[in-house]
Amino acid sequence: MPQEVLTEAAAEMLDWHGSGMSVMEMSHRGKEFGIIYEQAQADLRELLVVPANFKILFMQGGGLAENAIVPLNLSARGSPTGATGSADFVVSGSWSLKSQQEARKYCTVNIAASNESDGHTSLPEPASWQLSHGASYVHICSNETIHGVEYHTLPDLQALGSDAALVVDCSSHVASRPIDWSRVGLAFAGAQKNLGPAGLTLVVVREDLLGHALTVCPSAFNYKTVADNQSMFNTPPTYAIYIAGLVFQWLKRQGGIAAMEALNQAKAALLYDAIDNSQLYLNKVAPHCRSRMNVPFFLRDENLNDAFLTGARADGLLQLKGHKSVGGMRASIYNAMPIEGVQALVDYLHEFQKCRG
Amino acid sequence: MPQEVLTEAAAEMLDWHGSGMSVMEMSHRGKEFGIIYEQAQADLRELLVVPANFKILFMQGGGLAENAIVPLNLSARGSPTGATGSADFVVSGSWSLKSQQEARKYCTVNIAASNESDGHTSLPEPASWQLSHGASYVHICSNETIHGVEYHTLPDLQALGSDAALVVDCSSHVASRPIDWSRVGLAFAGAQKNLGPAGLTLVVVREDLLGHALTVCPSAFNYKTVADNQSMFNTPPTYAIYIAGLVFQWLKRQGGIAAMEALNQAKAALLYDAIDNSQLYLNKVAPHCRSRMNVPFFLRDENLNDAFLTGARADGLLQLKGHKSVGGMRASIYNAMPIEGVQALVDYLHEFQKCRG
Repeated sequence: MPQEVLTEAAAEMLDWHGSGMSVMEMSHRGKEFGIIYEQAQADLRELLVVPANFKILFMQGGGLAENAIVPLNLSARGSPTGATGSADFVVSGSWSLKSQQEARKYCTVNIAASNESDGHTSLPEPASWQLSHGASYVHICSNETIHGVEYHTLPDLQALGSDAALVVDCSSHVASRPIDWSRVGLAFAGAQKNLGPAGLTLVVVREDLLGHALTVCPSAFNYKTVADNQSMFNTPPTYAIYIAGLVFQWLKRQGGIAAMEALNQAKAALLYDAIDNSQLYLNKVAPHCRSRMNVPFFLRDENLNDAFLTGARADGLLQLKGHKSVGGMRASIYNAMPIEGVQALVDYLHEFQKCRG
Repeated sequence: MPQEVLTEAAAEMLDWHGSGMSVMEMSHRGKEFGIIYEQAQADLRELLVVPANFKILFMQGGGLAENAIVPLNLSARGSPTGATGSADFVVSGSWSLKSQQEARKYCTVNIAASNESDGHTSLPEPASWQLSHGASYVHICSNETIHGVEYHTLPDLQALGSDAALVVDCSSHVASRPIDWSRVGLAFAGAQKNLGPAGLTLVVVREDLLGHALTVCPSAFNYKTVADNQSMFNTPPTYAIYIAGLVFQWLKRQGGIAAMEALNQAKAALLYDAIDNSQLYLNKVAPHCRSRMNVPFFLRDENLNDAFLTGARADGLLQLKGHKSVGGMRASIYNAMPIEGVQALVDYLHEFQKCRG
């Protein structure tokens, strides 16, 4: 979280803008929270350049809940009433693997492509995807948090001959770069990486995709119900929306998404260069799809792992241990991480190599 | 929200207990958040005297999501595989009305009793309930927020000859009084009334009720999955859990739930006495089931409504307008409202009556 945002939130904790109330005490239907909600919606729409025919929904449950909520809402689109719908999935790492698994409860799942055979270190070329006929949507995870694989261009399904909607799980890189909405039907993201606190889920959905939910879809997670009620069918996570709104204002002060993208490119280049130009460290992901947010890397001599982590911690470099399913190290360099933080990590990589390499 | 809690949260916003991190920045799997989570669980278990054979789950989506999540998890219990289960509902106001409506997506719904004929101003005697044979559970809303109807004793289903589990929606009075767990199978509550910020849902469920979810239940809302993963199958609403934990500590400092109950009884008596002893105001709810949390009342001359609200606002008495479905006025006097606040309202009731009565 940007320190400016935390400072602002602390200062306003007991009294938001002279209202005499904390944001936590506001009724979600009151005038004051209405101002916060509308501003957050408008700022996010401006930042991400969301077209007018897309709804911005503030939901709950995170990406793992969306793995069910998306097929509950979209899979039956275009299928005869009562028939089981179908969806295509591109597996590019552990998140898309989980998504297709959950979707099998609600529809027929076709794996259009997978990078499992190379350990999730590449992205299958869209031209090679085996898209199925009649699928309601094609699901991709545009940044795999654990495997560090990122789409730098979203696939153009129309050009591939498909009229399915593209569903993008962009949880771990939303707001780090622009989104080409002309290629997207629905994008979702848990807020906790780049947008705000855990407990808020962002869904941006094209209006024509609303209204196709299965009868077993809970009302609170029916996109049309949520959209028709301005995300207030059930009580929204008001404080998390407020904090996300402060992050949106901070992003605008930084120069918006284009400025964040340039900074994220510079941060990522700094770190990947240090890894690639060393004999000690290794990143296994194909260069054209390396994530700018999550940089997994390995020490070629894994016996040095503990010493590396201990030294890092002594330098104030925290949370560098890789996910248990992958091992090694992982640096997550989200929007709020300044380039100085990445430089400090690079300095440590050099220093550790000098001592141990 | 108690002012002490907000002050504490503001002071710790940038640095929780010397960790160098805001709670919003903590990984939900990290050591620091683990401490917060375990303390919140232990404090809530102590406060509500939750028996060891009940799990405490921290979920998302609020009461309206639970209206679907409960039947998704419980309705099939005891039914043959693949058969539609059934549940009994006691309708006592708009919340239980919504609950039974949503449950019809997942199971056969039997209305065991309803107070619709008297405009939701009484509670049907449990001895008169028409419980169905083979129902998995009986759903009640133990405090109807809009209609101001509260159960002062939970029904004893066993004594009524039923082996169904009692499901209690206690969203708007949880932590205001003790709960007799010997009569409860599952209780749920959105946090935003008495426990903390919106975006956190408390579920307390007896262990033998876990593991009966329908196949269409989203994994993130499967109680067994949530319980098996210590509420961390998906990323939990970490900051909301932290604030709720501060509220639990505050409740302990107030003397716990018994002390809150005594205070809430005194607050409610003060307000109901003022209403009953006036010629200007009217509460329509039967005395034996009047809510201690939500006090709806009417001006006998409804032409005075606007003047009443304008004068109240001038005295700093906010949010007194009744729900649009009921009209009139409503005073919500949750745990965080001090008795001085209720006295100020009573003073205003007298003052307004003197001028206009």
